[in-house]
Amino acid sequence: MTQARRKQTAKHDRPSFPARFISFEGIDGCGKSTLMEHLSRWLAEAGIPFIQTREPGGTRIGERVRELLLDPASAGMSGRAEVLLYSASRAQLTDEVIVPAIRQGTWVLTDRFMDATFAYQGFGRGFDLERLKAIQAWTTGDVRPDKTILLDCAIETALERMGSRNGEKDRIEQENLEFHRKVRQGYLDLARSEPERFLVLDAEMPLEEVVEQFHQKFWLAEVEGQGAPEGD
Amino acid sequence: MTQARRKQTAKHDRPSFPARFISFEGIDGCGKSTLMEHLSRWLAEAGIPFIQTREPGGTRIGERVRELLLDPASAGMSGRAEVLLYSASRAQLTDEVIVPAIRQGTWVLTDRFMDATFAYQGFGRGFDLERLKAIQAWTTGDVRPDKTILLDCAIETALERMGSRNGEKDRIEQENLEFHRKVRQGYLDLARSEPERFLVLDAEMPLEEVVEQFHQKFWLAEVEGQGAPEGD
Repeated sequence: MTQARRKQTAKHDRPSFPARFISFEGIDGCGKSTLMEHLSRWLAEAGIPFIQTREPGGTRIGERVRELLLDPASAGMSGRAEVLLYSASRAQLTDEVIVPAIRQGTWVLTDRFMDATFAYQGFGRGFDLERLKAIQAWTTGDVRPDKTILLDCAIETALERMGSRNGEKDRIEQENLEFHRKVRQGYLDLARSEPERFLVLDAEMPLEEVVEQFHQKFWLAEVEGQGAPEGD
Repeated sequence: MTQARRKQTAKHDRPSFPARFISFEGIDGCGKSTLMEHLSRWLAEAGIPFIQTREPGGTRIGERVRELLLDPASAGMSGRAEVLLYSASRAQLTDEVIVPAIRQGTWVLTDRFMDATFAYQGFGRGFDLERLKAIQAWTTGDVRPDKTILLDCAIETALERMGSRNGEKDRIEQENLEFHRKVRQGYLDLARSEPERFLVLDAEMPLEEVVEQFHQKFWLAEVEGQGAPEGD
């Protein structure tokens, strides 16, 4: 695989197929980080350059915004301020990290992107989705993930997985069950409205099976299947 | 004055005329704080309840955003992130401070509001003004100042006034002269487009004369002249 890739790279003097921008979405505890780790390993084994990042955060400025957003002391934060702080972190991440990486042929894997704003602040908090979409288009300069992996599971399953994590819950995790149900449903609605971009995985299954689905439906079907790191 | 006001307040069981939301705009060093101090004194003497605030900041969350925005270490901040951070601080200030104050009959005086985003990020940095206006309308839920006092003076005059202040320059103050010229011109364009809302004062004069103009053209003409705190 790596050898075949090197040959093609030498020929084109750039990666043999364009770098891709992949976001992972879903409620906390659904298994996003596990899937990102697996994709990272497959990319590394195929010799494809990539970076991993997260939202909010991923830049020095964004990590300071993240601290403010997740601080339980920020409980009085207005819904609009919340949207705008997530967006500020996203704008910085897009301009400082994502766009330069893609331009130089590096894949970008991110734990959440703009869909999180639509799901949490649009569907969850009830802000008008069209206005949020307009703000997000400006925030990212219309940069959007090529593929969005949505891990879908029941809130109860996610909470159970989260239960095994230690430490205090952050401000967002403390929201009530009903809120998280709306967020889950919102993610599914978003996926239905853009079936080409979204790959929805049933994250109710044991995580090894979710990984296997992901390998089949994304890695084999859309990456290796596209000829690039196929070997000869 | 105070007595007359108390009579009217008793009669209507609310302030005798609606609380007003006044913003002060202009490049740094133009004399905004001096004018705010004078208006505060006139309001206090007339027994009119008011609060003073500033942007970015004015709330606990907003002051943390302010630190991040003005930190010289934030030099790599993208223009979009900057707009969104100012907006986040403004959304929090609007929801937590401005709207509740106005609702209970308290005047609000603020050192900068949405026009600063139009002048600095629109005219100064070249972001599309219509897109910025749409984002600001969402940010504030369409809350706008009733009156905006624009202090206009040459960059050189402002720099001279600033020269007498001590301490390190913040990130925005370090911008170059050409940028500040565009900002000044932008403020004048904004004022021309909304002559009812803006009161433009020539801040080239000595500050005592600017204060005198302000007293004549705003306090006497628009506040005392409207009958409320006129005395008997």
